[in-house]
Amino acid sequence: MEPLPLTDRTRVTRLAQRQVTDRAALHALLDEALVAHVAVVRDGGPVVLPLGCARDGDALLLHGSTGGGLLREAAAGAPLAVSVTLLDGLVVARSLFDSSMNYRSALVLGRAEVLRGEEQERALLVLSEHLLPGRWSEVRPASPRERAATLVLRVPLAEASVKVRAAGASAADDDGEDRAAWAGVVPLALRAGTPAPNPEVPASVPVPPSVRGLLARHGSG
Amino acid sequence: MEPLPLTDRTRVTRLAQRQVTDRAALHALLDEALVAHVAVVRDGGPVVLPLGCARDGDALLLHGSTGGGLLREAAAGAPLAVSVTLLDGLVVARSLFDSSMNYRSALVLGRAEVLRGEEQERALLVLSEHLLPGRWSEVRPASPRERAATLVLRVPLAEASVKVRAAGASAADDDGEDRAAWAGVVPLALRAGTPAPNPEVPASVPVPPSVRGLLARHGSG
Repeated sequence: MEPLPLTDRTRVTRLAQRQVTDRAALHALLDEALVAHVAVVRDGGPVVLPLGCARDGDALLLHGSTGGGLLREAAAGAPLAVSVTLLDGLVVARSLFDSSMNYRSALVLGRAEVLRGEEQERALLVLSEHLLPGRWSEVRPASPRERAATLVLRVPLAEASVKVRAAGASAADDDGEDRAAWAGVVPLALRAGTPAPNPEVPASVPVPPSVRGLLARHGSG
Repeated sequence: MEPLPLTDRTRVTRLAQRQVTDRAALHALLDEALVAHVAVVRDGGPVVLPLGCARDGDALLLHGSTGGGLLREAAAGAPLAVSVTLLDGLVVARSLFDSSMNYRSALVLGRAEVLRGEEQERALLVLSEHLLPGRWSEVRPASPRERAATLVLRVPLAEASVKVRAAGASAADDDGEDRAAWAGVVPLALRAGTPAPNPEVPASVPVPPSVRGLLARHGSG
């Protein structure tokens, strides 16, 4: 895969050693994220909202209702900035200054294309299989009315940067810390808890394979 | 507390029934979040990055290095949009269209004030006690050099909106779903895993009370 190009807008200026230009790292990060924060300019000022996301090849898919204001602006071709962040750990150093977080974070800049027809249907499959693998084949297909009410956007991963901190607690040589004191990382991850069925579901109905799979991969205990 | 005022910029247009104007709900959401996504306008286009955050009274604190470009723009008085999102669950409905996520999400609009001197020190205490309660008193105080390298911003919660979905899977009466099939919510939460000490920490050094407290509150096992 081509490395991520460094442009004036994607070159990391602060802690540049944390910049990763490996496109596979961008893909892996996006493949773990459920939510992207999407920013647009409205009336000269910024607006930012969370949207469900998934990666499809070398593009990011976003979706939501056709009634959503920010999504409509994105669909009309507004320049977008999309941040996708995974928080991987609290870095507990021996000073507050050296304390930090481990994370993987992507910034994608560009404009979105609205997907229609078969492209939309395929993108909905990709989004569904990303958010809850296996669910697609457990439920009925989307109706034409439902698809008409759903806006699916594709943002190419052409201008994107990735910043990663994945390390233990740093400790400068000269800052008077007690090296015998504890320092390290507390890993953080989004975990799934016990599924709560809707009240009308008969007690005899089992949790479906899609949910069991999610619990096997991301269950908390 | 005063309810959150509805302005043209904070009135939710899509699924307005999910808008919450209770200021206590905004505070509670911010009190659980570790990361905010902060957007600014740069050269006419949007940029958005994650920053560590904490609530202090009726304001949001953001902090980072004085070397960070976006933070410097925010410190210079650029209009900001800040999104803070907690993902609370996957909503598994009997159709893909009714599938959703449970979440709490805040949008804060405004400009930041740079905190200095005693205000900065107090804000660093609030940020530290939010990110890892108890750690402040386990480590040495920040040095003047360290504080000079740290930018701490305060954004008032004057113009803010909160949107919440906290419900089971919806099911319209007429959309041909099998009501005997499973539907419900899989709760999601950020959980802490087993702490990983730095390699130089002697095996006899215990995990500090701050980390033990975090594990007691948010541990995954």
